[in-house]
Amino acid sequence: MLNVTAYAAASPTADILPTTIERRDVGPDDVLIEIKYAGICHSDIHTVRGDWGAQTYPLTVGHEIAGVVAEVGSAVTKWAVGTSVGVGCMVNSCRECANCRAGLEQYCEGGNVGTYGSIDRDGTVTQGGYSTHIVVDQDFVLRIPEAIDLAVAAPLLCAGITTYSPLRHWNAAPGRKVAVVGMGGLGHMAVKLAHALGAEVTVLSQTLSKEADGRAFGATRYFATSDPATFSELTNEFDLIINTVSAEIDMRAYLSLLRLDGVLVNVGAPPEPLPVPVFALFTNRRSFAGSSIGGIAETQEMLDFCAEHGVVPETELIAADQITEAWLRVLKSDVRYRFVIDVATMV
Amino acid sequence: MLNVTAYAAASPTADILPTTIERRDVGPDDVLIEIKYAGICHSDIHTVRGDWGAQTYPLTVGHEIAGVVAEVGSAVTKWAVGTSVGVGCMVNSCRECANCRAGLEQYCEGGNVGTYGSIDRDGTVTQGGYSTHIVVDQDFVLRIPEAIDLAVAAPLLCAGITTYSPLRHWNAAPGRKVAVVGMGGLGHMAVKLAHALGAEVTVLSQTLSKEADGRAFGATRYFATSDPATFSELTNEFDLIINTVSAEIDMRAYLSLLRLDGVLVNVGAPPEPLPVPVFALFTNRRSFAGSSIGGIAETQEMLDFCAEHGVVPETELIAADQITEAWLRVLKSDVRYRFVIDVATMV
Repeated sequence: MLNVTAYAAASPTADILPTTIERRDVGPDDVLIEIKYAGICHSDIHTVRGDWGAQTYPLTVGHEIAGVVAEVGSAVTKWAVGTSVGVGCMVNSCRECANCRAGLEQYCEGGNVGTYGSIDRDGTVTQGGYSTHIVVDQDFVLRIPEAIDLAVAAPLLCAGITTYSPLRHWNAAPGRKVAVVGMGGLGHMAVKLAHALGAEVTVLSQTLSKEADGRAFGATRYFATSDPATFSELTNEFDLIINTVSAEIDMRAYLSLLRLDGVLVNVGAPPEPLPVPVFALFTNRRSFAGSSIGGIAETQEMLDFCAEHGVVPETELIAADQITEAWLRVLKSDVRYRFVIDVATMV
Repeated sequence: MLNVTAYAAASPTADILPTTIERRDVGPDDVLIEIKYAGICHSDIHTVRGDWGAQTYPLTVGHEIAGVVAEVGSAVTKWAVGTSVGVGCMVNSCRECANCRAGLEQYCEGGNVGTYGSIDRDGTVTQGGYSTHIVVDQDFVLRIPEAIDLAVAAPLLCAGITTYSPLRHWNAAPGRKVAVVGMGGLGHMAVKLAHALGAEVTVLSQTLSKEADGRAFGATRYFATSDPATFSELTNEFDLIINTVSAEIDMRAYLSLLRLDGVLVNVGAPPEPLPVPVFALFTNRRSFAGSSIGGIAETQEMLDFCAEHGVVPETELIAADQITEAWLRVLKSDVRYRFVIDVATMV
């Protein structure tokens, strides 16, 4: 066992405080990563607070991890000490089901092993990236291209792939009109990625307060959803809507914005069911879909794409003792656009 | 004007009684059809009863029409007197929007002109097929192949195309597993068509009372949705689910039956929104979609496909004075599987 420094929550209501956690010894197929940066995802908060189900505490969260390989197991062929690497939302899967064999480990039929709060193969509960080190199977490690500064790379591992995967799957490309609902951590990445993929990008945000940012990220149009005229003006407009909002939205209104065969894809995770008027789906043969992160191969593709196109998240670097404060700011949407913990401050 | 015999409702609560209605004179592009048979669709009842919005009365419904060309306009090139033809759920569209130009008149951006209860180009309210004659633009007339008996052809024009179109669009084909929810007018056609298209077909019905029929129509498996074991046994099973039920279903349970990239398509039209748990869409990247009838070209393709594969609806022929009674039986699901009015009895 390795004892490493981490920040953990002792209960659903606790602050995020320094502690020591155990990592397994580096097995033949394992990579020990010295974590340099860890992004703060809204999912971290939902999970610790119990919004998505009961957890085992203390719990260290964090699934946007950027670091450097510090040690490799005896059978590791893919990675060498000193390489810049990342870890995202999952650290293992069954590798045998049809979805795993298709490279879609995120949809592992038995459920993938999440980076935190999941039961690992050895029966322990996985602990995430708010920590100085992590031990991960080599097949679930990603290469961070040199062109991407490690200090901003971490959010690509969740916010990046969560938006890239549906954009690719539903063909965000030249000639296609994409709307992004919400301009938070996921939303701002969706705008940058959809633009880099060549689509025409429109932001639908509650207000126009982030319009300048949205346009700088690549949106050609920016509308306030608090204005009912937005919905009449944009009826039948979009091929694809990426909804990053984790709360109820007026599905009739948003679905009305889809043209023929248009798809509204939720990456936001509202805890309550969304009421979907079926007649709004009949018009234009519309669909409402969900998408969950991306497979390992696609995550690597996304990282390479971002390096090639100069796409990086907008981040605000914080010290580890600011995590609790940062969470409060995330809950108030007071972040442009992703907090990243400088793990060097975990002393 | 032509005065023709029809059966109409005088109000949302009235019986369906004989009357005389007006048809427009046969214009240059029009076809006068002598109606031989008219199917009874549940939509007829919903419309007259005001379930889907207010109507203008008296109203003659019916959008499953099979008959013979009795007269053609001076510019009609496609049709000759004596040809067996059909009319489905729409009698016109703008023909100029992108969807119309793509042959998807059912998704006309301005709204297609429904066969009954719609505002026609001349400002009158369209009147449907419970009638001896109808005048229809030649472009919205379908050819009924000789191999299909006119007496059973009518339900293909709504129940047939409404299920054929999503089966084709979402690729019901050999190697694909399709479930059909509900074994009524639409459901029984979905089973026959999905089987003829080469898919492996499973019926999900409230009880097993129609199992022998379902298997005769081509289903290889038949499950009762009243049995909770059905849902655990069939988790992650289907590529495509066609839901023909026009009432609320447990979306979490039905979505759980979809495998990777599976789609649940509603052709049933519940008046209230369906609550969709977004986490159920995340698993397997599932989609929930809607589909509305089919375009004119696809409707002709469906009729030709049915002729080639010997697919016809199961019908019960009734006299015109039995319409009100038949409606009551439809509301009780007491029909195997479609009532067809013998228009010769309209005297």
